[in-house]
Amino acid sequence: MYIPTYQDMLEAHERIRPHIRRTPIRTSDYLNELTGAKLFFKCENFQEPGAFKVRGATNAVFGLSDAQAAKGVATHSSGNHASCLSYAAMLRGIPCNVVMPHTAPQAKKDTVRRYGGRITECEPSTSSREETFAKVQAETGGDFVHPYNDPRVIAGQGTCSKELIEDTDGLDFVVAPIGGGGMISGTCLTLSTLAPETKVIAAEPEQADDAYRSFKAGHIIADDAPKTIADGLLVPLKDLTWHFVKSHVADMFTAADPEIVEAMKLTWKHLRVVMEPSSAVPLATILKNKAYFKGKRVGVIITGGNVDLDRLPWMQG
Amino acid sequence: MYIPTYQDMLEAHERIRPHIRRTPIRTSDYLNELTGAKLFFKCENFQEPGAFKVRGATNAVFGLSDAQAAKGVATHSSGNHASCLSYAAMLRGIPCNVVMPHTAPQAKKDTVRRYGGRITECEPSTSSREETFAKVQAETGGDFVHPYNDPRVIAGQGTCSKELIEDTDGLDFVVAPIGGGGMISGTCLTLSTLAPETKVIAAEPEQADDAYRSFKAGHIIADDAPKTIADGLLVPLKDLTWHFVKSHVADMFTAADPEIVEAMKLTWKHLRVVMEPSSAVPLATILKNKAYFKGKRVGVIITGGNVDLDRLPWMQG
Repeated sequence: MYIPTYQDMLEAHERIRPHIRRTPIRTSDYLNELTGAKLFFKCENFQEPGAFKVRGATNAVFGLSDAQAAKGVATHSSGNHASCLSYAAMLRGIPCNVVMPHTAPQAKKDTVRRYGGRITECEPSTSSREETFAKVQAETGGDFVHPYNDPRVIAGQGTCSKELIEDTDGLDFVVAPIGGGGMISGTCLTLSTLAPETKVIAAEPEQADDAYRSFKAGHIIADDAPKTIADGLLVPLKDLTWHFVKSHVADMFTAADPEIVEAMKLTWKHLRVVMEPSSAVPLATILKNKAYFKGKRVGVIITGGNVDLDRLPWMQG
Repeated sequence: MYIPTYQDMLEAHERIRPHIRRTPIRTSDYLNELTGAKLFFKCENFQEPGAFKVRGATNAVFGLSDAQAAKGVATHSSGNHASCLSYAAMLRGIPCNVVMPHTAPQAKKDTVRRYGGRITECEPSTSSREETFAKVQAETGGDFVHPYNDPRVIAGQGTCSKELIEDTDGLDFVVAPIGGGGMISGTCLTLSTLAPETKVIAAEPEQADDAYRSFKAGHIIADDAPKTIADGLLVPLKDLTWHFVKSHVADMFTAADPEIVEAMKLTWKHLRVVMEPSSAVPLATILKNKAYFKGKRVGVIITGGNVDLDRLPWMQG
């Protein structure tokens, strides 16, 4: 297992800089008053494909040798990693193969195809996905870019916190959502060197709290079929992300689905940005733990903004 | 009639700079491809009270003498001007009286009150509004800040285009929505001196096209009870705004309500910002006039982001 270094992150930032956006930081007096903290929202939903995952994907794609690049990249994902990897591959002009369950939302498939990604559908089971992916990879020779358990991806995600620290005047905390742990690992990687006084906090849906339970237990615990509105956070930790979580995350908080939806709506209303339920988990946990964050300067990573505008969570049920 | 000057706009910018946000400019490769133009969206929806109107309101409020400031300001409005003037008055710590029809949405009233504005309700008719406002003004001595037909307000709105020009590398067009004409007038005021090569285009809802018809006829024509989803654009031109429209607007385009809703949804999806229907009129007109804007660099002012998240226009009917 190769653990990416601070130098890897710096090189990633140089590599991806021409291809990604330096996203703005938004603040809201209203949300500051409501929480009692000073919040700095890093808008990764403003990346062209709408998610921070373009950072790791672009770092992997543009780090390939020309020989490997000719064969392209491959992954399995039905979320933002699939569209961001397709987007990065399109920018370099190389093939991208994505294995995705046939049950994935049509909008996700459309986005991958819009960026030139080639989709191979599988059954919605781990065995079918692994079998299908092995076949696709054997046929194409595409380089496997895992959605999060990949040092190139983690180094890429770490560039987000570098910008966040550069564009603010010191932070007490950075809070980011945790699913597989790619963003949190990148945040730990960067802040442990660049701003060791800034504590990294992971925020997780109560109904998919495997990382929280792992963190408390001291070893990886997987969820059994988690189900939450924050559908970007269903995947489990892996060895590489667990390394960063256990060695540098200062604390972990959870929030229930109704709290996540409420925080999402608050952000839409007062920051006036479109973001996914997963991105609302940090604010939901801050609202639940006001005493902990009181008076502190808190960076909050808005991880993505790809949401079905026809099916907003507060308009259902 | 005092016509505000470029120097007034420069002084306005110095005056309001500590109190407003320098809003970011967002771009979208997707929307550029879709329109064939290069679009630069100035996000005035990211002002704390969610609209460009905070610029003119803040300029008026902070330009008052101490003696006048003690008596505060007053206006009639049930839209963004009411909340922005209340917000500016709160920043200076002075009273703000707002006359509003009792039929105005509760959310608008709540926002004005959150910023410390004092609401006096009237009947939803011009005569009742004028009578009530005269009474309120006589009682309080508050300085009347008209929503748009006021040189201080127009000079304040003009600071938006100054930032837009400073933060882009030259523009062929700036497109902004037109209702009473405050933003368009400020845009004309600034660009006619700062960037005379940049053409000012006004975008109006087809179902409230009084400015369009006035522009074509060469004199002010008022609408008879206009009705459009773009409810920030219902008010008519007045002498001061008509002066700027007739002397410097290069062209005017209209769009129908379904086109406005479609443009609004496109922006939410691809720029990932929350904006009002009124703010979508420019993109709707650009999509209808692609040949006109083809290959051009186009500034688009997103005027506001105060929208009822429980009643989005594409989820009705």
